[in-house]
Amino acid sequence: MTDTAMSSGNNAMNGRTGRSPLPGSSPRLSQEFAKEDVQKKYKHAFVIHAKRRTSCLSRESESTPSFLGFRNLMVLMLVVSNLRLVLENFKKYGVLVTLSGHEYRHQDVLLGWILYLLVPCHLFVAYIIESVAARQAKAAVARIKRNDDPRTRSQSQQRERRTFEITWTIIALAHGVNATLNLCIATTVVYYHIHHPGIGTICELHAVIVWLKACSYALTNRDLRHALLDPAVSVPLPDLYKSCPYPNNITLGNLSYFWWAPTLVYQPVYPRTEKIRWDFVLKRLLETIIGILLIWILSAQYAIPLLQNSLEMVSTLNLAAIVERTLKLSTISLACWLAGFFALFQAFLNALAEVMRFGDREFYSDWWNSSSLRSYWSSWNKPVFHFMRRHIYAPLVGRGCPKVVAQIAVFLFSGVLHELLVGVPTHNIIGVAFAGMVFQLPLVAITDPLTKMESSNGRTLGNVIFWVSFCLVGQPLAALLYYFAWQAKYGSVITPRLWS
Amino acid sequence: MTDTAMSSGNNAMNGRTGRSPLPGSSPRLSQEFAKEDVQKKYKHAFVIHAKRRTSCLSRESESTPSFLGFRNLMVLMLVVSNLRLVLENFKKYGVLVTLSGHEYRHQDVLLGWILYLLVPCHLFVAYIIESVAARQAKAAVARIKRNDDPRTRSQSQQRERRTFEITWTIIALAHGVNATLNLCIATTVVYYHIHHPGIGTICELHAVIVWLKACSYALTNRDLRHALLDPAVSVPLPDLYKSCPYPNNITLGNLSYFWWAPTLVYQPVYPRTEKIRWDFVLKRLLETIIGILLIWILSAQYAIPLLQNSLEMVSTLNLAAIVERTLKLSTISLACWLAGFFALFQAFLNALAEVMRFGDREFYSDWWNSSSLRSYWSSWNKPVFHFMRRHIYAPLVGRGCPKVVAQIAVFLFSGVLHELLVGVPTHNIIGVAFAGMVFQLPLVAITDPLTKMESSNGRTLGNVIFWVSFCLVGQPLAALLYYFAWQAKYGSVITPRLWS
Repeated sequence: MTDTAMSSGNNAMNGRTGRSPLPGSSPRLSQEFAKEDVQKKYKHAFVIHAKRRTSCLSRESESTPSFLGFRNLMVLMLVVSNLRLVLENFKKYGVLVTLSGHEYRHQDVLLGWILYLLVPCHLFVAYIIESVAARQAKAAVARIKRNDDPRTRSQSQQRERRTFEITWTIIALAHGVNATLNLCIATTVVYYHIHHPGIGTICELHAVIVWLKACSYALTNRDLRHALLDPAVSVPLPDLYKSCPYPNNITLGNLSYFWWAPTLVYQPVYPRTEKIRWDFVLKRLLETIIGILLIWILSAQYAIPLLQNSLEMVSTLNLAAIVERTLKLSTISLACWLAGFFALFQAFLNALAEVMRFGDREFYSDWWNSSSLRSYWSSWNKPVFHFMRRHIYAPLVGRGCPKVVAQIAVFLFSGVLHELLVGVPTHNIIGVAFAGMVFQLPLVAITDPLTKMESSNGRTLGNVIFWVSFCLVGQPLAALLYYFAWQAKYGSVITPRLWS
Repeated sequence: MTDTAMSSGNNAMNGRTGRSPLPGSSPRLSQEFAKEDVQKKYKHAFVIHAKRRTSCLSRESESTPSFLGFRNLMVLMLVVSNLRLVLENFKKYGVLVTLSGHEYRHQDVLLGWILYLLVPCHLFVAYIIESVAARQAKAAVARIKRNDDPRTRSQSQQRERRTFEITWTIIALAHGVNATLNLCIATTVVYYHIHHPGIGTICELHAVIVWLKACSYALTNRDLRHALLDPAVSVPLPDLYKSCPYPNNITLGNLSYFWWAPTLVYQPVYPRTEKIRWDFVLKRLLETIIGILLIWILSAQYAIPLLQNSLEMVSTLNLAAIVERTLKLSTISLACWLAGFFALFQAFLNALAEVMRFGDREFYSDWWNSSSLRSYWSSWNKPVFHFMRRHIYAPLVGRGCPKVVAQIAVFLFSGVLHELLVGVPTHNIIGVAFAGMVFQLPLVAITDPLTKMESSNGRTLGNVIFWVSFCLVGQPLAALLYYFAWQAKYGSVITPRLWS
């Protein structure tokens, strides 16, 4: 055992006044007294209160003390209070997580597999459409080149441009029919024929992703074709694209890469890494599995009983009880959300990117520090944000649409996608997910000025508004409402063993 | 509504490659096409994935992102989860805090007032003893001075020193009897005659404080007298004391100041402030009242029902249930503890110091960052720490006692004081408070090496050990045990089987 604190006091008693304040410690004392002094070095008189000092929490204190210890305490309190809830839950329910707990209908699994194979076909239909368009564009370029006269060449170019417009209308129609069919077929099958909400969500998510990819593929290639057909263009395409100029990119290999690449935005060329680090892939996949397991346990053991308990309160509109249940659910939904974010955006997409040697891994930025809802929505899901920016916001603004209107359009479109992904698999298109996205617009308007405040208080307030609106109220409330709607429509089918 | 995020994206699409990548945006295009371009500025082809980037949470990322947002989330989660518990408690119990809820016996209040008036008298008895000693010392000094011969003067000094030793023995005895009587009378009255634990605690605390003050007064003046009687002393007393040299400090006014000063350590002179800021005093008193009210509400509304619920679990020694109850109690006891710390050490002692124009306000330092139990005990309660250092640790070490032994002595003495303050008012000297202090010794031994580790992980671990041992386990467990002992002795609705 050492004695820093105590002996520092010991030093201070001599150090504080600069010399030993004690009467008995002088070497010039008589021998007898000095000897006694060695044995009895009384130190009861040294100065403790030597000068004016303030309490470190007082406002007049010169420096604010560190509060790192309280941060540790907070983490600990969260761990402890949730540990207590785990104990309480175990005492009440025992272990609810069972491997045989989930029952799937045979039809659900079969239809899920069929959709899994069918949906990507629409991407290949899009490829066929683009191949036809590319062949026509090549022919047009050849026609323009064959015309040597500069004067008539310009006329021929204008003619080609008109032809391009007509062709594009036909191609756009073909793409539109193809993409819409994809989304409609998948949505119809999921809504009417796949009962299990988990399988339904996976199918619908797959269809929406392929739909967005097909749209991006069609729109990007349209612009690239436009650039090809106008040799007078002096502003070059991005340097990155030079290694694969249009129409060289319209190949099955190029499309297949885009099909599996972790992005929703088509580029003929992507930044790539040199090699696949398989240990990196394995680690990320392990993280993905752990994240999914965590969500599964949290749902089965904590969320489902809680939701079940809340049903009667929702049906009788007991507001105080609904608030209490939402607050209790918020911890679980937040934990699921964080685990899901990590498993999908950090672990899975990084693993996929590594396998595809996809270089740009910025699938998210530090959304947790968002001081406005705008910065949250533009940082938590970069793939979707990139799609929105490139194929909805930028074109709208480019066509002269006011920026505010373009933003509203983005949020409305996002609302439709959210409702598709939540309402369709739960067979209840009740509009809560759509309304949740639309509700972001006033929140964006409220939190935007906070970001620009000079003091950090504004940003902290904005961050707190984000957490409260999104994680503590929005998500658990939406979960409660969709669960209630499900139970109202189907009764207790999802967990027949426990609640029958 | 503004559009930073979206338009920053908009800028990026031109900025990323250094020029506009779009075919339709060149000014050299034909007039007709350029006009069309203004209306239809398609931007579907710009580069999104321009270069290799890592996810910001990946290990290979160059910089670690800030996690300030998660700190905000933690604060929020704590607020929300406790808000939920408040709601739950209200649903279950309604409002338990009532003004008429506390019943005092008439005798308790009467005895409390008598003790309140009687206890300080012992301080004045100590003053009378010191007055006699000072008069004797003055006479001795006069005798030495009258002796002009340097050779016989030394002999006379030695004689005086021997007289001093005999006198000190008598004075020490008188002080001992006086101080011991104070503590014994108060403790006996509180233990046998004051039933209410709140009134008892206040009386016992008052007696202990006055006892410590009387000890410090006697010991300090003994050393000052020693210095006076040895003119050969070359090492002067602290400069601060020069304005009031011994025996000038033995006055009723000087003692009265020490009586009310917010310190347990006697100095003839203290650093003082110029004037009393009454607004400061009022603010601090208001904070004190708020703190006390908070503790009262927390105890009555949350702690008492919880303790009541736990009685049967303690009596049947249901270990899992005791752990669960201790964890639930820990939040409440921690809140009480923090409120009590703030109310007493920051608010009340600052108010008292301001009224007394007492300059040294360092009643605590940043104990919440403590990375070892030692630094916690030397920083959370400076008045007691100063007393221990000046009147127990330093004299013991000065007399040649090993530092470790001196430290153990300090903790044992502190354990006795704690048991007096908790065991006596609750009429159960069960030794838990004493054992709690003794248990600090191994914890100090464990956490001391962590403080010296180079990485901050050691300090964080030490800090976590401090919070867990002290606030999450020690305090609630002790509260549970003393409450159980109280109920076992005085009966309650639930009669514990173990004690009947």
